Amino acid sequence: MRLLFLGDVVGRSGREALTSRLPGLREVWRLDFVVVNAENAAGGFGITEAICEELLEAGADCITLGNHAFDQREALSYINRQPRLLRPLNYPSGTPGRGAGIFDAASGARIYVANVQGRVFMEQLDDPFAAIDRELKRIGDAHEADAILIDMHAETTAEKMALAHFVDGRASLVAGSHTHAPTADAQILVKGTGYISDAGMCGDYDSVIGMRKEEPIRRFLEKTPGARYEPATGEGTLCGVGVDVERGTGLAVRIAPLRLGGRLSQCWPEFWGAP
Amino acid sequence: MRLLFLGDVVGRSGREALTSRLPGLREVWRLDFVVVNAENAAGGFGITEAICEELLEAGADCITLGNHAFDQREALSYINRQPRLLRPLNYPSGTPGRGAGIFDAASGARIYVANVQGRVFMEQLDDPFAAIDRELKRIGDAHEADAILIDMHAETTAEKMALAHFVDGRASLVAGSHTHAPTADAQILVKGTGYISDAGMCGDYDSVIGMRKEEPIRRFLEKTPGARYEPATGEGTLCGVGVDVERGTGLAVRIAPLRLGGRLSQCWPEFWGAP
Amino acid sequence: MRLLFLGDVVGRSGREALTSRLPGLREVWRLDFVVVNAENAAGGFGITEAICEELLEAGADCITLGNHAFDQREALSYINRQPRLLRPLNYPSGTPGRGAGIFDAASGARIYVANVQGRVFMEQLDDPFAAIDRELKRIGDAHEADAILIDMHAETTAEKMALAHFVDGRASLVAGSHTHAPTADAQILVKGTGYISDAGMCGDYDSVIGMRKEEPIRRFLEKTPGARYEPATGEGTLCGVGVDVERGTGLAVRIAPLRLGGRLSQCWPEFWGAP
Amino acid sequence: MRLLFLGDVVGRSGREALTSRLPGLREVWRLDFVVVNAENAAGGFGITEAICEELLEAGADCITLGNHAFDQREALSYINRQPRLLRPLNYPSGTPGRGAGIFDAASGARIYVANVQGRVFMEQLDDPFAAIDRELKRIGDAHEADAILIDMHAETTAEKMALAHFVDGRASLVAGSHTHAPTADAQILVKGTGYISDAGMCGDYDSVIGMRKEEPIRRFLEKTPGARYEPATGEGTLCGVGVDVERGTGLAVRIAPLRLGGRLSQCWPEFWGAP
Ligand SMILES: [Fe+2]
Ligand SMILES: [Fe+2]
Ligand SMILES: [Fe+2]
Ligand SMILES: [Fe+2]
Ligand SMILES: [Fe+2]
Ligand SMILES: [Fe+2]
Ligand SMILES: [Fe+2]
Ligand SMILES: [Fe+2]
Repeated sequence: MRLLFLGDVVGRSGREALTSRLPGLREVWRLDFVVVNAENAAGGFGITEAICEELLEAGADCITLGNHAFDQREALSYINRQPRLLRPLNYPSGTPGRGAGIFDAASGARIYVANVQGRVFMEQLDDPFAAIDRELKRIGDAHEADAILIDMHAETTAEKMALAHFVDGRASLVAGSHTHAPTADAQILVKGTGYISDAGMCGDYDSVIGMRKEEPIRRFLEKTPGARYEPATGEGTLCGVGVDVERGTGLAVRIAPLRLGGRLSQCWPEFWGAP
Repeated sequence: MRLLFLGDVVGRSGREALTSRLPGLREVWRLDFVVVNAENAAGGFGITEAICEELLEAGADCITLGNHAFDQREALSYINRQPRLLRPLNYPSGTPGRGAGIFDAASGARIYVANVQGRVFMEQLDDPFAAIDRELKRIGDAHEADAILIDMHAETTAEKMALAHFVDGRASLVAGSHTHAPTADAQILVKGTGYISDAGMCGDYDSVIGMRKEEPIRRFLEKTPGARYEPATGEGTLCGVGVDVERGTGLAVRIAPLRLGGRLSQCWPEFWGAP
Repeated sequence: MRLLFLGDVVGRSGREALTSRLPGLREVWRLDFVVVNAENAAGGFGITEAICEELLEAGADCITLGNHAFDQREALSYINRQPRLLRPLNYPSGTPGRGAGIFDAASGARIYVANVQGRVFMEQLDDPFAAIDRELKRIGDAHEADAILIDMHAETTAEKMALAHFVDGRASLVAGSHTHAPTADAQILVKGTGYISDAGMCGDYDSVIGMRKEEPIRRFLEKTPGARYEPATGEGTLCGVGVDVERGTGLAVRIAPLRLGGRLSQCWPEFWGAP
Repeated sequence: MRLLFLGDVVGRSGREALTSRLPGLREVWRLDFVVVNAENAAGGFGITEAICEELLEAGADCITLGNHAFDQREALSYINRQPRLLRPLNYPSGTPGRGAGIFDAASGARIYVANVQGRVFMEQLDDPFAAIDRELKRIGDAHEADAILIDMHAETTAEKMALAHFVDGRASLVAGSHTHAPTADAQILVKGTGYISDAGMCGDYDSVIGMRKEEPIRRFLEKTPGARYEPATGEGTLCGVGVDVERGTGLAVRIAPLRLGGRLSQCWPEFWGAP
């Protein structure tokens, strides 16, 4: 099975990188399932119904979020109507929406996706390790999924790596998100789970984490209030990670990053052929 | 000029990756200057005199540090005797050692190196932006350096990117360190400064940021005291970034990551030839 | 019912303030129940079996802890044998010990005590609001307790006040601990719960939160490693809060702080008479 | 000399507590100088020109601020025209306004006031210890002031206490602000500086740090966006600390808290007589 995870879509540059490229990639690579983190898709802050539908239509099978999940308030109600939109699993009980779901791929495979959020230097949430452990035990006992993909939305490398090793052998892929910088550490862990610390953002890399540079720089220099953050508007890079998952075991057999367009060095999973 | 920056050396695995490969790389690539962050070289915590000398002998021209600078107390006195060892520039005045220096490359070029530490989710230090700005003005006015390399040791991508854009056009390279995950966002910024968010660690990537996995995972699951952190002992990956700097302008003209050995995908600056 | 809560006992000065005064106070005031936070009782860090027994013998009915709970490792096993020693309720499941208990007062009244830890600027734990809510519903439904005392061990006033209002009318007393500074905001909240933001420490107030001053000051000035923290050894102040709880409703009818000995202004619950 | 410091004025309740009581207190107690922290005076967030003038007219001689200094943008320009309004001293150079000033009391005494902000769990600022040390050396060498008052606006008790001991014998009073909970630890330190960890807020104590309770409680329970914070509107308590400063030495000889009106227990510096 061919799974693609794309990192935090930031603003129009990120959306255009995705909508212009994903439909073609899905077809030429015959992708089984595509997950997109889109917590910054709406002007850098959150997601709207219209944008979520646009991303699903462009070829995303499931959208994940993070600490910016509800920056656009319409998402608080929309998420209850859209099962393909996930917010972090370990938000307090009572939070609108779901943190995980099982979806049918076109091939008939059943793909479990969970969105989980780290706690180090982030909001006070329930334990992401305990939350994902409960889920994996439930899913594993029921033999419900052919592949298991976890979006670990977290600040520190340590928390991401620790969670990945914690679920090693029980998940197909742990892909980090949130830092907006793609890491070059994609690997298959010792028990078979594919891992990357951060998939990177889909957005303009002539920026400060996808935002126009002036105001973020100013806020480091001065401690006075200023302008709002606005997404940078240069050509975006589509950033993510592709993984081949073995039928039967649900483990990763090949993994490689994807970077197309924009300012970064270009690459793709060569085991899928040229894009 | 060919400059190489290598990220946080972690324990024996990191040191061996460096000592076994750097002498050959220096020669085959005719490198002008090599800077190595070694804040975790001594058992994962700090640096000793013996280890610093070992790294310099293996081909490092300058060693930088970070928040672990003085984990080994002997560094508090040794750093005053070793001008090639730098600790962050923006530590309080009175801190032993220096935060920046100008060094002669074999070619006769003069290389300025600064080590600066971020503040977001880290210790309370003086402003790294103001500190580096003062330095660059002083160096620039005096036309003292042919190349300027900054090790920005910080937790968040945003602080690293903002600092790099802040000095864009005034430095040859801003290389991030501290997260222990190499990023895949090496680029030349719009005014000519080379940039990578994190050079990655030199160490064993079957680990949690270079440390044996069991105890870090346990600390996320339990909140009780446990064992000490120990570096992982598998084969290390040499991780860093190479940059070609133009004589005269001191700006970057080519930049590419380096990853040799261990578990990560292998790569090197192809404009320097095969390693 | 007369309940007394004493704040964080710090080192020998704190223990002596308690052991020299509490036996007399219990008798002259005919106290029904005494709870003592002792997370810093052993040299400033944690608690030992010998010290816990000493405090219970001096008149404490129940000992609570906090983020320093297991600084002394013997507490990891001792807490399983000592039902009167509580660690925060919202530690991960599997943590040794208990976070709450129901105890018999000499009068026959049943006193429920819970120790709960805040999360803002502290460790990543389970939600203290959800944890205490579950407990209060269980206790309330079963009519199991005549008085309910909560030690809210937290850094920020906001989290303490919010939790107190959240349980207002359902608990007899919410007493804060952890900052080591007694607050002067004791009051009965609108629905009848007694509240104080922090009971203060039992320890020497010529100090930095109970520790000898030199090293803490030095660490603010310098960022180099130094000496260990040692408790200050001057005369300690016994610090806490007394509350009269109404039989039947279990709500607070009178509340006042206690400060005896040492450098702070002296005061006590005048409705209990002179000490 | 009789100095009064009043803690963070929060919203209308805080302003009314101050304007209704301060004019009478100034007169009956023949106060020499009154400093008021007013960072939350304007609807809980910052200060406006009109509100600052109102507080000065009611009897404040100097207004200090903190992390909310510029929540109302008009303060960015107004502060340059109003020398009696101070923002933290250790903000970046280039920040509008001043962090310290020397003022003439009616008696002819010269009163130096500094506003300094802590860094632990707060914004990344310049070192408050180094900043105040430079100021005290300058002022001391020039024999410019008869009394020295420092508003230490900080989150943790440890940073406040450490700073107070650091300046002990060199200042008349170090009064903490920011937590919005008055502490009961007023004392004269061993070398003669008056100290209180927090002067408390002037505002409604049936609240979460001065704000209406519902939304702060909800934000601890849920992690979704909600309503704005609004100040509570019940009767405010005037909270602060009074100190008698010796002419000649500039050191404190008597210190006591002040709490008038509202829900808290009432008290005042008895050495000044009844209010
Ligand atoms: Fe995020
Ligand atoms: Fe994001
Ligand atoms: Fe490091
Ligand atoms: Fe580091
Ligand atoms: Fe404590
Ligand atoms: Fe504590
Ligand atoms: Fe405030
Ligand atoms: Fe504040």
